[in-house]
Amino acid sequence: MTERRMLVVGAHSADFVWRAAGAIAAHTARGGRARVVALSYGERGESGELWKEPAQTVENVKRIRHDEAAAAAKAVGAGFDCFDLGDYPLGLDDAAVTRLADLMREFEPHVVLTHPERDPFNPDHPVAHAAVARARLLSSGAGVASAFATTPPSEFLVFEPHQPELCGFVPDTFLDITSVMDAKREAMSAMAAQRYLHEYYGQRAEHRANHARKVSGDKGVRFAEAFQRMTPKVVDAL
Amino acid sequence: MTERRMLVVGAHSADFVWRAAGAIAAHTARGGRARVVALSYGERGESGELWKEPAQTVENVKRIRHDEAAAAAKAVGAGFDCFDLGDYPLGLDDAAVTRLADLMREFEPHVVLTHPERDPFNPDHPVAHAAVARARLLSSGAGVASAFATTPPSEFLVFEPHQPELCGFVPDTFLDITSVMDAKREAMSAMAAQRYLHEYYGQRAEHRANHARKVSGDKGVRFAEAFQRMTPKVVDAL
Amino acid sequence: MTERRMLVVGAHSADFVWRAAGAIAAHTARGGRARVVALSYGERGESGELWKEPAQTVENVKRIRHDEAAAAAKAVGAGFDCFDLGDYPLGLDDAAVTRLADLMREFEPHVVLTHPERDPFNPDHPVAHAAVARARLLSSGAGVASAFATTPPSEFLVFEPHQPELCGFVPDTFLDITSVMDAKREAMSAMAAQRYLHEYYGQRAEHRANHARKVSGDKGVRFAEAFQRMTPKVVDAL
Amino acid sequence: MTERRMLVVGAHSADFVWRAAGAIAAHTARGGRARVVALSYGERGESGELWKEPAQTVENVKRIRHDEAAAAAKAVGAGFDCFDLGDYPLGLDDAAVTRLADLMREFEPHVVLTHPERDPFNPDHPVAHAAVARARLLSSGAGVASAFATTPPSEFLVFEPHQPELCGFVPDTFLDITSVMDAKREAMSAMAAQRYLHEYYGQRAEHRANHARKVSGDKGVRFAEAFQRMTPKVVDAL
Amino acid sequence: MTERRMLVVGAHSADFVWRAAGAIAAHTARGGRARVVALSYGERGESGELWKEPAQTVENVKRIRHDEAAAAAKAVGAGFDCFDLGDYPLGLDDAAVTRLADLMREFEPHVVLTHPERDPFNPDHPVAHAAVARARLLSSGAGVASAFATTPPSEFLVFEPHQPELCGFVPDTFLDITSVMDAKREAMSAMAAQRYLHEYYGQRAEHRANHARKVSGDKGVRFAEAFQRMTPKVVDAL
Amino acid sequence: MTERRMLVVGAHSADFVWRAAGAIAAHTARGGRARVVALSYGERGESGELWKEPAQTVENVKRIRHDEAAAAAKAVGAGFDCFDLGDYPLGLDDAAVTRLADLMREFEPHVVLTHPERDPFNPDHPVAHAAVARARLLSSGAGVASAFATTPPSEFLVFEPHQPELCGFVPDTFLDITSVMDAKREAMSAMAAQRYLHEYYGQRAEHRANHARKVSGDKGVRFAEAFQRMTPKVVDAL
Repeated sequence: MTERRMLVVGAHSADFVWRAAGAIAAHTARGGRARVVALSYGERGESGELWKEPAQTVENVKRIRHDEAAAAAKAVGAGFDCFDLGDYPLGLDDAAVTRLADLMREFEPHVVLTHPERDPFNPDHPVAHAAVARARLLSSGAGVASAFATTPPSEFLVFEPHQPELCGFVPDTFLDITSVMDAKREAMSAMAAQRYLHEYYGQRAEHRANHARKVSGDKGVRFAEAFQRMTPKVVDAL
Repeated sequence: MTERRMLVVGAHSADFVWRAAGAIAAHTARGGRARVVALSYGERGESGELWKEPAQTVENVKRIRHDEAAAAAKAVGAGFDCFDLGDYPLGLDDAAVTRLADLMREFEPHVVLTHPERDPFNPDHPVAHAAVARARLLSSGAGVASAFATTPPSEFLVFEPHQPELCGFVPDTFLDITSVMDAKREAMSAMAAQRYLHEYYGQRAEHRANHARKVSGDKGVRFAEAFQRMTPKVVDAL
Repeated sequence: MTERRMLVVGAHSADFVWRAAGAIAAHTARGGRARVVALSYGERGESGELWKEPAQTVENVKRIRHDEAAAAAKAVGAGFDCFDLGDYPLGLDDAAVTRLADLMREFEPHVVLTHPERDPFNPDHPVAHAAVARARLLSSGAGVASAFATTPPSEFLVFEPHQPELCGFVPDTFLDITSVMDAKREAMSAMAAQRYLHEYYGQRAEHRANHARKVSGDKGVRFAEAFQRMTPKVVDAL
Repeated sequence: MTERRMLVVGAHSADFVWRAAGAIAAHTARGGRARVVALSYGERGESGELWKEPAQTVENVKRIRHDEAAAAAKAVGAGFDCFDLGDYPLGLDDAAVTRLADLMREFEPHVVLTHPERDPFNPDHPVAHAAVARARLLSSGAGVASAFATTPPSEFLVFEPHQPELCGFVPDTFLDITSVMDAKREAMSAMAAQRYLHEYYGQRAEHRANHARKVSGDKGVRFAEAFQRMTPKVVDAL
Repeated sequence: MTERRMLVVGAHSADFVWRAAGAIAAHTARGGRARVVALSYGERGESGELWKEPAQTVENVKRIRHDEAAAAAKAVGAGFDCFDLGDYPLGLDDAAVTRLADLMREFEPHVVLTHPERDPFNPDHPVAHAAVARARLLSSGAGVASAFATTPPSEFLVFEPHQPELCGFVPDTFLDITSVMDAKREAMSAMAAQRYLHEYYGQRAEHRANHARKVSGDKGVRFAEAFQRMTPKVVDAL
Repeated sequence: MTERRMLVVGAHSADFVWRAAGAIAAHTARGGRARVVALSYGERGESGELWKEPAQTVENVKRIRHDEAAAAAKAVGAGFDCFDLGDYPLGLDDAAVTRLADLMREFEPHVVLTHPERDPFNPDHPVAHAAVARARLLSSGAGVASAFATTPPSEFLVFEPHQPELCGFVPDTFLDITSVMDAKREAMSAMAAQRYLHEYYGQRAEHRANHARKVSGDKGVRFAEAFQRMTPKVVDAL
């Protein structure tokens, strides 16, 4: 069997940590390859702590954010790239979609993770979703022979937003991350600028594990992440 | 690993054949155990061909329907039981729910399949859904220690109704039944009274395979069945 | 072409007047036959004005309500029957569903109108909907030969509730009742006990006509009623 | 202004504690009156810890559950009653609905809280919702003069279920319970049999406060509960 | 307590009058400040009456529309500005969103009103909604310290569209405008070019009051407007 | 009565064939006029078979696709035009919307057909839907006198997508195409490059006929197409 590849795309450089670091760690722990793409550094909307430094510059904020995200990605075994498109608002044009589609053709991910389609509390997350969904279709084509290079259609899931019900997020997949929770904690620790979220998402992982235990009866799930599939899963047994 | 058990509950004796015979065959082909329960024989609503016989009796119709369903179940490796509650309308009272819950406690299914919650074209299918959903919760309890015997919560999916969009059915799982399509055909052949559906559901399996190929890029899927999960799936990798 | 038959079922004796009197009048004006069935007289929940009379009795309230509804039905060319099942709460058991189904087998309606499935402001309307939906399926069968007498499946629509958005009512059909608005007004006038609704539903008919004009560009629509189909319409041209 | 009255109805004796104790405490702290009704003691489904005692009896379990719930209610300033209808399944018949409606006519609540309409993980919660919704309509009538005593329509909200997204719960109201969190903690402490939920719902209150801060910008919210209105709110300013 | 500020944004200069003039009047009557922004004059799509004048010019149409809207705004105590972006289609680019966001940073509204997200009968209303929603998020930021000036997140509601059910509008708030209905009528009278809507929205206010009375039991509500919240409300008591 | 005009807009040149050729044929068979507009030739995403030819050029692919589509349109009695905007991605800018709107003002269609609003398997179909919906509103105006030429609002329906449930497609109209199925087959035969779809959509027409027979009881429906209305239908009888 070939190596399984996972692509995680976030609007800002830290998004993947809170929402999918466990999924990445579980994936790489099984020998899969994972790649994280941030569309921006979140240098304006999410980096207020850094801007409290006198004489702070945008280049320096981006550098710090890059280092943090790269360290977090490394903690869960993934590579990290940033498109540096700017945030609040995220500057997504056709060229950026093409770049994403080209990356998908090259990396050929088996599974793609990104933000949900709606988020009434964030202007950039839905833009990121739309770009990923569009790039995914442009890179995989219509499922018939086409005039351009295509890649097989990936599984497509969205990760948990901050206020799930208000984003229309209804989880259909609970991922047991018990065995890789230490790696997720390490990834979270790398995000020094957003410390207030470490505790929040640590507790969230326990809550989702509680849900997963109720759903499955599996008492061994202590930490979990929640996901929602955008397209059906093809299986060979129920 | 313990043997995996599947329970399929239909309102009428033939429902499981068109909608889940492939799932059963795929399950038993892998060594799983499967049990089919029909809540009624469909002796009034679905057996018109049999009633064209002069001097037909309800006992005889039920006997024929039992033999057909048992043969179809056998073709896909499953046992068959009928609660014989009557159809059009399906006579489901608390005792029948208790009987279903007791059966679940005894059989301890890992996965349960039944009709979707809504069906604007059939008065019995939603009643069957409600009974199965309720029995499942009564048999598995609240996920905490309780005063009565419980069974671990099963995976709970609904199979494809006849007019999917109008029943609110949105498939999230396509099951590849290519390797067991012969068994499904044999099961369908056992249902002599509803021959007009053999071709319909044979073509439907091809269409769902077409969808599954588009979703996954897997060219090997020639026949498929569609399902929708009622509760999230707990997994250990995406 | 055979005479077209319409069946209108309301929870209380006056429901059909505000919500479907125009539809009935338009139907009978074209030579169709119409029958109104009230499941109750609304003698408790809707007849407060009558109960202000000293020494009022339930028999007398029902008699007055019957006479009013029969007069209103007559004004739009329909017959009127009441099942007299009691209101607040509407007492609907299996026997009442059977009675409705038998009536459908006998009358063989081409179109059936009743309340929407949900109404957070009325305990009886959803009960009426469920009974009509169920009776309709039991009387028409599964669309195949069956063991009992069946009638062809009718078109099934719900009429406008009092607070449409909160009942999940989304109209897909605006009926032009301009030519029969006088008959609807006469029917409304027959409901002496609920005078406060005459003006309300007179204005409502103007508003729905405004909507219908915007939808169609047809400036001739001055009064309209709104309906939502529960099952698709089969047509031979778009 | 008259004293404001709140009625909280749970399927099992402990439900109100985790989901609405803060709302009750905030209500009584402002001089309002609050009454908690449990439809059952949850003696079968939620009391497993108690049943681990040798020679345990159902009477004793109910007594303990009563004392715990009464103490919890007292901690937030409310009275407590139990209909003792049995759980798993909750035994709700017409008489119980009538009893609830009578209680509403007598207590005349301004606001009613109960479970959401759906819960794919609990067989009793939706039954409780349906009963409360029905009793509320039967006690308030059609908004016109009627043949029976009525009470003004109450505000009607549902409290947070255990797996919100999967119950269709979309909060539209975050209640700041910061000033009464100690009382909620005391109420939770009274529920000795379900200790594993104290931490869970303590954290949940912090998460909902985080959400409330994001929604409102009010940094003072440290603990919150979430609710969803079933009917619109009438206000005199936005 | 500081003065409460309301911002109302319409696609065309008259939108605020029919849909929110009562809300504005109720707001300013209590000492609040209100500002109306029209994104266009509706000079093409809504001003047909004016164009019937021979030798009419677009400048003159805009001037008349400005004067009417300013007079209407004044009647309910609000200031009026127009972005003059053109209508049918509304010309909304990133600069216009930035201008709106800047205005929000400067005015710091506590509550923002605009059109619903969908309207199958108007090409400009959804565009206006998207711009307001986006500007609101860009001006309030992520709820954490950021690199740019932010304003606290406002309450965000949509006002009633012309065909509510077909726009997905489900009111959760009925505003009693009885005491300010005269001001709303005066505002409507200022819109000479759209006289046919005066009667329509006068009746609509009576209908919404009827709904509000049914919801609340408050007999004093004679006129009302309907709104739907886009984000939850944070409260300190239910 | 004036001749009835139908406009069918597809993202790619073959879309109309599989999804609406029967509707067009039924329309023209009754004396109506029909016009097909393709926004692109689908020269990249749908023409892989043609690209297998050595030395193939994009001009030649477009020419072949044009000839096929024109022949298919002719087979069902319609004219064919292509905007040639490019596919994967479909290049739709404001000028293209204006061109569509101008075409609608000129052709004045009574009914417009296009793709559904959502399609998680195709990047171009939703773009086409949005353009058609927008052009339709821009060409018909607000239903009042306006500053520009308008055309009466057309009936607006979407045709069946390839994976209906996953596109949110819920049919409300089944069109009996039995009498014109030969013409549809001829149109399908003209699409040489997509032969694998002939059988698929031939069977689909039988399945939709099965559904239509169940809905209506009309045994004569042997082939059907499914549609969903985007705006209500105005009728003068039910």
